[in-house]
Amino acid sequence: MSTDAQAFVKEIPNRAESLSDWYTAVCLKAELADYSPVRGSMVIRPYGYALWEGIQRWLDERFKATGHQTAYFPLLVPESLLKKEAEHVEGFAPQVAWVTHGGDEELAERLAIRPTSEAIILPMYAKWIQSYRDLPMLLLQWNSVVRWEKSTRLFLRTAEFLWHEGHTAHATAEEADRECLTILEIYRRLLEEVLAIPVLVGRKSPSERFAGADNTYTVEALMPDSQAIQAGTSHFLGQNFAKAFNVKYLDRDNAEKHVWSTSWAVSTRLIGALVLAHGDDRGLGLPPRIAPYQVVIVPILGKDGERVRAAAQQLAERLRPVARVRLDDRDEYSPGWKYNDWEMRGVPIRLELGPRDIAAGQVILVKRTGGGKTTVALAGIEQAMTRALDDVQAAYLDRAKAFLDSHIVEVKTMDQLEEAIRARRGFVKTGWCEQQSCEDAVRERTGASPRVIPLDDVPSGACVGCGKPATATMYYARAY
Amino acid sequence: MSTDAQAFVKEIPNRAESLSDWYTAVCLKAELADYSPVRGSMVIRPYGYALWEGIQRWLDERFKATGHQTAYFPLLVPESLLKKEAEHVEGFAPQVAWVTHGGDEELAERLAIRPTSEAIILPMYAKWIQSYRDLPMLLLQWNSVVRWEKSTRLFLRTAEFLWHEGHTAHATAEEADRECLTILEIYRRLLEEVLAIPVLVGRKSPSERFAGADNTYTVEALMPDSQAIQAGTSHFLGQNFAKAFNVKYLDRDNAEKHVWSTSWAVSTRLIGALVLAHGDDRGLGLPPRIAPYQVVIVPILGKDGERVRAAAQQLAERLRPVARVRLDDRDEYSPGWKYNDWEMRGVPIRLELGPRDIAAGQVILVKRTGGGKTTVALAGIEQAMTRALDDVQAAYLDRAKAFLDSHIVEVKTMDQLEEAIRARRGFVKTGWCEQQSCEDAVRERTGASPRVIPLDDVPSGACVGCGKPATATMYYARAY
Repeated sequence: MSTDAQAFVKEIPNRAESLSDWYTAVCLKAELADYSPVRGSMVIRPYGYALWEGIQRWLDERFKATGHQTAYFPLLVPESLLKKEAEHVEGFAPQVAWVTHGGDEELAERLAIRPTSEAIILPMYAKWIQSYRDLPMLLLQWNSVVRWEKSTRLFLRTAEFLWHEGHTAHATAEEADRECLTILEIYRRLLEEVLAIPVLVGRKSPSERFAGADNTYTVEALMPDSQAIQAGTSHFLGQNFAKAFNVKYLDRDNAEKHVWSTSWAVSTRLIGALVLAHGDDRGLGLPPRIAPYQVVIVPILGKDGERVRAAAQQLAERLRPVARVRLDDRDEYSPGWKYNDWEMRGVPIRLELGPRDIAAGQVILVKRTGGGKTTVALAGIEQAMTRALDDVQAAYLDRAKAFLDSHIVEVKTMDQLEEAIRARRGFVKTGWCEQQSCEDAVRERTGASPRVIPLDDVPSGACVGCGKPATATMYYARAY
Repeated sequence: MSTDAQAFVKEIPNRAESLSDWYTAVCLKAELADYSPVRGSMVIRPYGYALWEGIQRWLDERFKATGHQTAYFPLLVPESLLKKEAEHVEGFAPQVAWVTHGGDEELAERLAIRPTSEAIILPMYAKWIQSYRDLPMLLLQWNSVVRWEKSTRLFLRTAEFLWHEGHTAHATAEEADRECLTILEIYRRLLEEVLAIPVLVGRKSPSERFAGADNTYTVEALMPDSQAIQAGTSHFLGQNFAKAFNVKYLDRDNAEKHVWSTSWAVSTRLIGALVLAHGDDRGLGLPPRIAPYQVVIVPILGKDGERVRAAAQQLAERLRPVARVRLDDRDEYSPGWKYNDWEMRGVPIRLELGPRDIAAGQVILVKRTGGGKTTVALAGIEQAMTRALDDVQAAYLDRAKAFLDSHIVEVKTMDQLEEAIRARRGFVKTGWCEQQSCEDAVRERTGASPRVIPLDDVPSGACVGCGKPATATMYYARAY
């Protein structure tokens, strides 16, 4: 490492010593986000927002391809509506920001800033859905929600966050359940294929379900500190909300029936998971498929600088059809400073171009995932770039997969479970009898929470709590 | 008109008799929007939201191409920040929705739901901007804002609406002013080239400026009832906000200076203008460049239905590269019903395809702007489609332009002005001495408001109020 790089890296706390300090420093230094004057709310800066736009674009295309449409529902929810589904309000009321005044006038009824939008969307469904011909209704919105959190962290837990929320209504329970799994698979692909974060896919234990849901499906990732993160959820709401909000349809058999509904979401929290998953002591690491800039070109502007700048511009234009290119030809910074800065910002590929490279018809290519400098002929640069981007994408996924695979441990006793959590060995897999008391015992003993029961679960052995035959396999972990 | 069509149209109020009733009926019937359980807030339904997505896509591309970046700032603004710029808070305080409680806890300081975001963005600029190297700062966000309006109408005036808001900071007044005009030109192009709504381009009189601005630029359109609509504004904020929020930079000459700032926005109100501008007694009219579906294909499914359906599917696939295509091959509705329904929804082109058409290698093409049925050979359908879409786009613009041109009248006296406003003759152009008292006199006499002083103004003649030489040309109108 050059002395330049050492000085640069010194500003970022050591990742192994404190992932938490490292995380905050990188979010701020890479200009992903900043603290705001509002308690618990953050500002998402352009580089961070570009990550969100990438997630939006990828998801929105898949949502539309699977028949979903986008809409927009009000930010404010009358208290009386929020109270209609008993479990739902119980779950969310402690976190609600309340509007009590409009201008100088005190409102007759308080309005909640939506913590989630079932209570404002389902009343509209009651109005719009008349007959089986109106089903399924498959809507989503991209919006912000507010949950009054006590302690917050950039992206991972904030009083306001951005997300999408899908809300669908179906004629049958089977179809609603299938919808949940269709969405879950889209989330799994986003995590694994785009963000290069492998996940466990399954369902939550009842204690961890969405307030008002009959079943919550989840994709769970494991961060480098062996803490789990719930990366996306899709909820089978049964007929709970349909009954609370009177959403009925006239079926083919002329009988009035309640619909079956679902809701699902991923949020800007994913950006926190992305930062945690792939960074290193030099800063951020971004898989190419989500990186706002996939390639940065740094021209070596010495004497003959203008000729090099022109060649770098030409190279940038050439690469634009195959990659998102950033040309950094600023005069006020040295090449070395730029190398470190763009590494800190996680750009997957760097191209260095000097007068000798131009003369030799080549360029120096450096991957953010390591391997040092390689020389690439300018002649076939487009193909080389595509290959290099694929390599970096694969390297991030392989590394994260290797980490996850080596951080799933199976235990049979409570002592082993406690020790595995204490030693941060990752997801701790064990048997469960599905009694709440046994889950509670694990929570109390270990501080871990039940994360996920695999979709294709084949339970075996005994419950770690009571020793009775297990009816489910549970993965425990401490969690964000 | 067939009896089918007559029955269909009967549900929509006559447009000439009451544009207002027609407007609401069309917004609801075409499923652009719906009323919500929250006072003054509406639901934007998928067909309406698709119009907003079209506007977003077009604008976002131009904003990015002119060096702007997207970010996201908090929804909630502490009262103390909102109060920092005196004129600003005076302008917005009566319309603010206030959050006073988080969960069960009463907040120490009230939080405003942003009515606009200067007061939360400028404090961040104060943190981020240190030197001239950090300028210009060109950010925008896509978000919702809340203004507690007393009387509301779908899209045109709602307590919550969607918009983007741009906020920029510059080293010089000239550069900030140029930014305002760059944005104004993007808005003009959106209105005229995409939405086919011609506009007057200029600046506001001081009484109509944004609260806290030194100058407000505007694009103003005229609706069929001769009422003006402010379609987009860009504000030159001078150093007012920079001083209130202490946004300073170290210049090349080592002196600390306040920045010059701008802000600008268009909102979902544009969708209201779009509906008003192009509809007719059959319903909505959508220019192709903004229409969610540009072409609807209606197969005539009689006997031999499956063969026709297959041919229609094939035709749809063929046209997808040149147009946004909707195939309506539903069995439960008749072709006639579908014709009326898609006309009501404003789809620019309809293609009818029956067994005889297939045999003859042709299709029937009907434009929403009139001209009846024409027969088009399937052989060159792609080119014919592109041409037809261009024709419809041009027809909407020409019609709207002819309307605007014939609804600008010039007057010299207050009596003429009053009469022209009363008779709904459109924009009423006259001289103004730039004294507030003369403007107030017009408002009181006529109920009209000053809409716009043209950018390239060459004042002439006398002020309509006091008879002194005019220093500005003012266009008056009643307004939405």
